[in-house]
Amino acid sequence: MAAAEGAAPTRIMVAVNESTIKGYPHASISSTGAFHWTLNKIVRTNTSAFKLLFLHVQVPDEDGFDDMDSIFASPEDFRTMKRRDKIRGLHLLEYFVNHCHEIGVACEAWIKIGDAKEVICHEANRIQPDFLVLGSRGLGPFQRVFVGTVSEFCVKHADCPVIAIKRNASQTPQDPVDD
Amino acid sequence: MAAAEGAAPTRIMVAVNESTIKGYPHASISSTGAFHWTLNKIVRTNTSAFKLLFLHVQVPDEDGFDDMDSIFASPEDFRTMKRRDKIRGLHLLEYFVNHCHEIGVACEAWIKIGDAKEVICHEANRIQPDFLVLGSRGLGPFQRVFVGTVSEFCVKHADCPVIAIKRNASQTPQDPVDD
Repeated sequence: MAAAEGAAPTRIMVAVNESTIKGYPHASISSTGAFHWTLNKIVRTNTSAFKLLFLHVQVPDEDGFDDMDSIFASPEDFRTMKRRDKIRGLHLLEYFVNHCHEIGVACEAWIKIGDAKEVICHEANRIQPDFLVLGSRGLGPFQRVFVGTVSEFCVKHADCPVIAIKRNASQTPQDPVDD
Repeated sequence: MAAAEGAAPTRIMVAVNESTIKGYPHASISSTGAFHWTLNKIVRTNTSAFKLLFLHVQVPDEDGFDDMDSIFASPEDFRTMKRRDKIRGLHLLEYFVNHCHEIGVACEAWIKIGDAKEVICHEANRIQPDFLVLGSRGLGPFQRVFVGTVSEFCVKHADCPVIAIKRNASQTPQDPVDD
């Protein structure tokens, strides 16, 4: 039997991240693709029947590469850096939340810090969505050896069903590891 | 933008198989679970926006074990056996098609013969559904070594997104390899 009108909404968790290409906190090509795929293929016009849960995992900058040109002279400089990271994350989530608001789809969004694949599984197991949508670069086996894939890990370790949406071939950047 | 009313329906391919437990062509626990999950969590009340495509792959009985007690005395006996297999497959599909018909969801169903995981990927790549739903027994890593999993193979080899729906723990039969 199809779910009755008024049943609890289907809760879809969507993990999103920043683009590696642009300097500003744009959503990655694969995150944006997975989001629009979810709206176009699943939610469609049934906007009240779904709730989207956006998780953005910020990866701590272990090697400090992003801050190679920064000068840290006081504790305040570090706080500034952390605040800047937080603002970038909020800008990212704002894109998804604004879009949902415009089309009338309920949503929530939050930020966690850590290793993306582990945090995504941990949060999925904590939040228990009906399923998890992940954007994927759709890398071949050779490239995967070097960059790993979050989706393969989550399919194995998340309690809920996982669907990985591969980036359109036409949207692959010059370096396919970029996103 | 959410898909407009009247846009082409989302085409969901669902691979279904017979139960290994019951003698009669009942759908397997995991197939039935994946089907109802799709209706309850994705289709919901938006029945006109989706089309379900049911594929049943019949595995040729290589070792003839199922026919150990049969006596083949004429070519007609073999034809009878093939006809019986076909009837079993049709009964299986009838369950899914009837249910869709009752709730007003468009569907198609067909049977292919061969290795399940390879035929499912081949058909998915031929039919190009928006995504593929597979029931999964949710076996642990130890059991998987012996029985393999269709869903792991399809995630890697199907062109479309794949979502595996694990069987409810409460529905696991005495031997978890059964379904």
